[in-house]
Amino acid sequence: MNTAAHAWDVIIIGGGPAGLSAGLYTARAGLRSLLIEHGAVGGQIINTEWVENYPGVKGTVTGIDLTQAMHEQAAGFGLETVYADVSGITIDGKFRVVHTSGEDYTARAVIIAAGSERQKLGVPGEADYTGKGVSYCATCDGAFFRDKEVAVVGGGNAALTEALELTRFASKVTLIHRRDEFRGLAVLAEKTQATGKVDFLLDSVVDEVLGEQFVTGLKVSNVKTKEQQTLPVSGFFVAVGFRPNTEHFKGTVELDQQGSIVVDNLMATNVPGIFAAGDIRNGSIRQVIAAAGDGAVAAVSAGRYLHG
Amino acid sequence: MNTAAHAWDVIIIGGGPAGLSAGLYTARAGLRSLLIEHGAVGGQIINTEWVENYPGVKGTVTGIDLTQAMHEQAAGFGLETVYADVSGITIDGKFRVVHTSGEDYTARAVIIAAGSERQKLGVPGEADYTGKGVSYCATCDGAFFRDKEVAVVGGGNAALTEALELTRFASKVTLIHRRDEFRGLAVLAEKTQATGKVDFLLDSVVDEVLGEQFVTGLKVSNVKTKEQQTLPVSGFFVAVGFRPNTEHFKGTVELDQQGSIVVDNLMATNVPGIFAAGDIRNGSIRQVIAAAGDGAVAAVSAGRYLHG
Repeated sequence: MNTAAHAWDVIIIGGGPAGLSAGLYTARAGLRSLLIEHGAVGGQIINTEWVENYPGVKGTVTGIDLTQAMHEQAAGFGLETVYADVSGITIDGKFRVVHTSGEDYTARAVIIAAGSERQKLGVPGEADYTGKGVSYCATCDGAFFRDKEVAVVGGGNAALTEALELTRFASKVTLIHRRDEFRGLAVLAEKTQATGKVDFLLDSVVDEVLGEQFVTGLKVSNVKTKEQQTLPVSGFFVAVGFRPNTEHFKGTVELDQQGSIVVDNLMATNVPGIFAAGDIRNGSIRQVIAAAGDGAVAAVSAGRYLHG
Repeated sequence: MNTAAHAWDVIIIGGGPAGLSAGLYTARAGLRSLLIEHGAVGGQIINTEWVENYPGVKGTVTGIDLTQAMHEQAAGFGLETVYADVSGITIDGKFRVVHTSGEDYTARAVIIAAGSERQKLGVPGEADYTGKGVSYCATCDGAFFRDKEVAVVGGGNAALTEALELTRFASKVTLIHRRDEFRGLAVLAEKTQATGKVDFLLDSVVDEVLGEQFVTGLKVSNVKTKEQQTLPVSGFFVAVGFRPNTEHFKGTVELDQQGSIVVDNLMATNVPGIFAAGDIRNGSIRQVIAAAGDGAVAAVSAGRYLHG
């Protein structure tokens, strides 16, 4: 191992809001900090057209502008960034070695902030209209659909909760599910029905997302009768699950049943010197402000670990 | 109980970053949301001259401007605010009644975000120079004292950690403690000494903070010899503890030994429908971004509770 390989105090894996906030905090604390990002800095939020719920940033801002500001701030305090795919972490005594598609990087502390992927439905039009009527998060985007008709697809608690949340804004919510009953909690299903604003479209699948500049409707077919219909909606919420990006960290840190990294409330994993923050950790609410908060907590914890 | 008393879905106690973020989220989710603040909206951060570590807000911003932006955002989504002193919460079946110096307010969910007080040293000049060289947080303000001489007062882990953090910026750190040994961890004390940048001034107390526009020094005296000296420093970090503002919630929700509210990682207390966020909860790192993150988590949890 050469000297250069020991140059870092903290390595941060992932350049979304959690990683950028962590990097801002570690760099500003005078720790030699390296951010490793595999694609573009910013994380999932850069796929979102507008953000209006980041406390302290008034009006609407694009996800790109918000995270670019975070990156510039962190770089201003000395955070360095490399672009590479991380393939794993190994422990070498007091050091943690992060293996990538480029070189290996070594530090005394690592913060994993590699995020999660929302499961796509995988139908024509879905990708084209993402951020233009197709959403994966009612908490994020529900307020943009006041007095409009929307649809939700999915059969679990997440889909039922999304539908319930949307009843506060939308004039009508259609909940589309491929089976004839819900895996979700009965009480949630009843509560959804009790609003009087949710139509259930069971035994049905979405074949295509239709639109012009924005979503205008869905092509839906019944799996039993094979009948196809067009459902006119302005918003389409996909709630078929999330997959934390932990495939390269399995066996290194403890994961829960969903594959999320298990952390305590100071963002420490079960491995000393390895912390996790943002959507990749268990219990994340998948909101930019919460991820940024997590990042700061993980950074402070990493600093205490290095000092302690 | 009259009908008006049942008007709220969520009551938020405390208008600092945690409460404002919570209010933004609950109001934007379409929940009827009331914020109760006893003084000025903004919380402790409004006593801080400049904030430069709030991810997404580049450059420096005053604590007042940052939290005012948060309040305007939240109000824009429908958050209402009243000014009153909260004296306690009682449980009335599905409702939680918040008692104040004005009227009582009732909601189905409550988020406690009443913050914590930093312990003051209580010496002349301390209040005058707060934000002008006197600080209660090295993580927040250490970076403002690059290549300057600073002092830290306190004898616990917090003081040792503050001193260690400051060695990354300051040219010299004097650690002042009234006893001749530290209550802090031995390993921390050794590590502090090993930096070669920390002078220990034991058996000593600070009598006065000296300054002109900013801090210029401290009057320090030895408790045994009674000798007094002037210590020239630009920064003075007070690390003598924090007190969470939980006196009115004792007996309602579970507190830890320090008096902080015990929460899980979704900010739920031991009482259904009561959540906590920010500096008042156990494990808080007392940073604006983390408090704002907490607020969003508590709001999402409160929403799930109301829907569930």
